[in-house]
Formats: sequence, C-alpha cells, structure tokens
Amino acid sequence: MNEPKVVTAALIIIGNEILSGRTKDANLQFLGEQLNEMGIRMRECRVVPDIEATIVETVNHCRANFDYVFTTGGIGPTHDDITAAAIAKAFGTEIERNAVAEALLLAMYKPEDVTPARMKMADIPIGAALLDNPASTAPGFRLENVYVMAGVPRIMQAMFKEFSHELTGGEKVLSSSVTSHIPEGAIGMKLGEIQDHFPDADIGSYPFWKDGKPATSLVVRHPDRATVNAAADEIVQAIRDLGGEPLDDKRPD
Amino acid sequence: MNEPKVVTAALIIIGNEILSGRTKDANLQFLGEQLNEMGIRMRECRVVPDIEATIVETVNHCRANFDYVFTTGGIGPTHDDITAAAIAKAFGTEIERNAVAEALLLAMYKPEDVTPARMKMADIPIGAALLDNPASTAPGFRLENVYVMAGVPRIMQAMFKEFSHELTGGEKVLSSSVTSHIPEGAIGMKLGEIQDHFPDADIGSYPFWKDGKPATSLVVRHPDRATVNAAADEIVQAIRDLGGEPLDDKRPD
Repeated sequence: MNEPKVVTAALIIIGNEILSGRTKDANLQFLGEQLNEMGIRMRECRVVPDIEATIVETVNHCRANFDYVFTTGGIGPTHDDITAAAIAKAFGTEIERNAVAEALLLAMYKPEDVTPARMKMADIPIGAALLDNPASTAPGFRLENVYVMAGVPRIMQAMFKEFSHELTGGEKVLSSSVTSHIPEGAIGMKLGEIQDHFPDADIGSYPFWKDGKPATSLVVRHPDRATVNAAADEIVQAIRDLGGEPLDDKRPD
Repeated sequence: MNEPKVVTAALIIIGNEILSGRTKDANLQFLGEQLNEMGIRMRECRVVPDIEATIVETVNHCRANFDYVFTTGGIGPTHDDITAAAIAKAFGTEIERNAVAEALLLAMYKPEDVTPARMKMADIPIGAALLDNPASTAPGFRLENVYVMAGVPRIMQAMFKEFSHELTGGEKVLSSSVTSHIPEGAIGMKLGEIQDHFPDADIGSYPFWKDGKPATSLVVRHPDRATVNAAADEIVQAIRDLGGEPLDDKRPD
C-alpha cells in the first residue's frame, strides 16, 4: 500500500493593518477550513508588514517548504500595495503591464474612471498566470506554487472559489468532536492514553464555558474513518467513566 | 536630538486548531492594539502547529529578531499542550515542577480535583519567571524576552494586563483616519504623492462598502502629531479636490 500523500500549504497575510490590530483577519479561518475539506493541510501562517524585503524572504521560505503558498493583501491600487512587485522580486523577475489584466480593467471602468492607480492593478510579475476575480475584476495571479489574492475577504473568497478546483488535494482528514462538562484537567491523563492508542491521530482538547460551567470539546482528526470513530468511542467511554455524559457527539459525515 | 527608539514585537500563535480553521484567533488583534498603544510595534505574527521542532525554530528566530516575543496557546493540561517543553528546548534548558506554580494549583483545586494532568501546568522551564493568571490561576511564564501566555482570549488578556506595565515601550505611534466615498482607485495616485511629502509616515488605504457604495478609510500613522495632522489635512484636501467630502475625520487624541 502506498503511503497517503500529505499535501501542505502556508498562508502569508500581508498588511500593516492586520499587525496593528486595525483590521481583524478573516482569511486564515476561511482558507484553513476550505483547504482542510480538500485534504490540504495548512501548516503555517505568517502575518507580515508592507515591507518588501520581509515579503520576499517570507515568500521564498514558504514556497520552498510547502506544496502550496497563498498570499492575501497588497494587490490594490494604492502606493502601499506592493505585493506584486515583491512577489516578482522573490522569483527573480519583474512586474510588467499585463495585456489581459489591462483589457479587463479598461472594459470595467468608465473612461473617466481609468486612473494610473487603478491601472497599476494590471502590473503583474512576468510569467504569472492570472487568477479570475468575479467580485471586483482586478485579477490575482499565480507564479509556480504561489497564489496571490486580494485581502478583502469577500474578494479573496471569490477568487479562491474560481481556482480551488485546480488544486491537488491529499488524503482528506476526517474529524469527530465530543463535547462534555468534564473539564480538560479531569480527562487530560486519560486523553493522553487514548492518544497513545492512536499515535498518528491528531487529538485536541479545547476548553470553553457553557451554561456557566467549564466544558471541553475533544476533537479527533485522522484520514481513516474507523480510526476516528474508534478514538471517539474511547473518549465517550472516558467521559462516562468520569461520571459525565456527552452533550454533543459529532462523527465524520 | 536622539533618534526615537523603535521597539518591536512578534506574536507566535501555537495550535493546530487555528490552522485548521476550527478556532478563529482573537489574540493578534488584541495584542496588536494594546502594544500599539504602548509604542511597541507588532512586526510579525506566525501561526504554527503543535509540532515541537517548528515551535523551537520559530521561537529562536523571533527572540533573536524582535525586542519582545509573545506566544499564545499550548500551556494547558492535555497531551497536546507542548509549549512549555518546546520553549525550554528553544532556550537549551528543560521543564521542571515549579514550586510556586504547584502551590498555586494545589491551593485552587479541591483535593479530589488534583490530577496529574492539571499539575502538568506547574511544569515550567528552569529559570523562567511566572506570569500571574488572575482568570484561571495556572500561570504563564517569561524567559528573557519571550512571554508565554494561554490561548483562550479571556485568560490571555487577563495575563497580559498583569505584566504589561513592565514592558518598555518606544515612541507611541499616533494615527488619523479620514473616510470618504472617493474610491481608492480615484485617490490612489494623489495618495502616493502625499506619501512622498511625508516619507516616514505610514499611510494606508482601506476600502470597504458603506450604504451600497465604495468607501475608503485613509489612515496616517506617525509618532509626531503635527506630521499626522499635516498629512491628514492633505488627504482631506485631495478628497475635496475630487468632489468628495469626508464622512469621518478622526485625528490623534
């Protein structure tokens, strides 16, 4: 039997406004979930400022270490939108006015709205493939394994949905989630034993408050349905052994 | 005149659940804002999985490159809480049962609730200083410039507020924010010129939708109040020159 292929991804979020707390990122959660559904595991996310050297270094690190790299932010019409130039530099190339992107923008804008700032969005690294943007026209682009998208979540999501079917997923990770009022400190040791029974499963414990009492979600993640269910069964038994009862017991679809 | 000192920080968010999209991070925005208020600039954030080698490498990179490093996540009572051991390894030391942390936990839990899993939260790297946790007792810790906090936002925030007065801030960055219905593609070139007038200001453009029409927030950030106001005045003038009117004009307090 062949080892199932693990396909990995990294996300690079570009923008001072995320680091200063002015804007709350929503792209990591969306992409994490979407990629997970496709059997692609998000292994790292880096939030970096609008500094070219940092973007170049981060892109080059990630594209060498992960199967897919996604970036969000910095491809708009203003002077602080430096992502396209930085990606070009990371690949040892330059940006140029892309004829297809230029035509798309000229077709969208009224003549009086065609500004140099807006046309800057047609400056794309040499050799890149365009990524369609059904939300606001100005395209993203792909260079090798690096997908460059807008930062505004609505636009990023529209772009991602256009090309996501082209991504090659690995084995999909299935999950169960069992919630109870047994605190994680009470079930922790037993959970470690269950982890030892299923060493290649990813078993996580996530505490929260429910109805004024501590509660815990115990999540099992593994590509094999029988493994997920067997580990979840042991978790349910452990909860009952501690005098609890699952409030919720979600298994793989 | 001495150059004002720029104080930098990085945040390391530790946890598979953030990367898979199961849990949406709320700590970056909180810390970005809080540090900004103190004159500390968040320069990078990395979200990493519960993999020891990755945590060690990330911590060692960040502590050598930023004045302050903050970590969130992975200091709870379960087997997937590996942050303390990973931080110890990054510093070339080991974890040990910390007598003060142990006493705090023993004082909080009823005897029948004292479990090995809970007491694991008293295993702290040798040489670390404890960080008080007024929300749920189990302490965080500091080793040199690395502050290790819980991942649950309520607990992280309580910990941060206990020690934040000990952090040494740099020059505080002030900001203005002028919002209008002039789209960023229309004001983009002019904004680039204004940036050239104030080359060391951080001028950002953030598009959004308001009342069914495109709108843009134009933000100026700089330590000097007069510089922020002068740049914001030019932005207001540019909006008016384009036939618009500011919807909102926030200046430094």
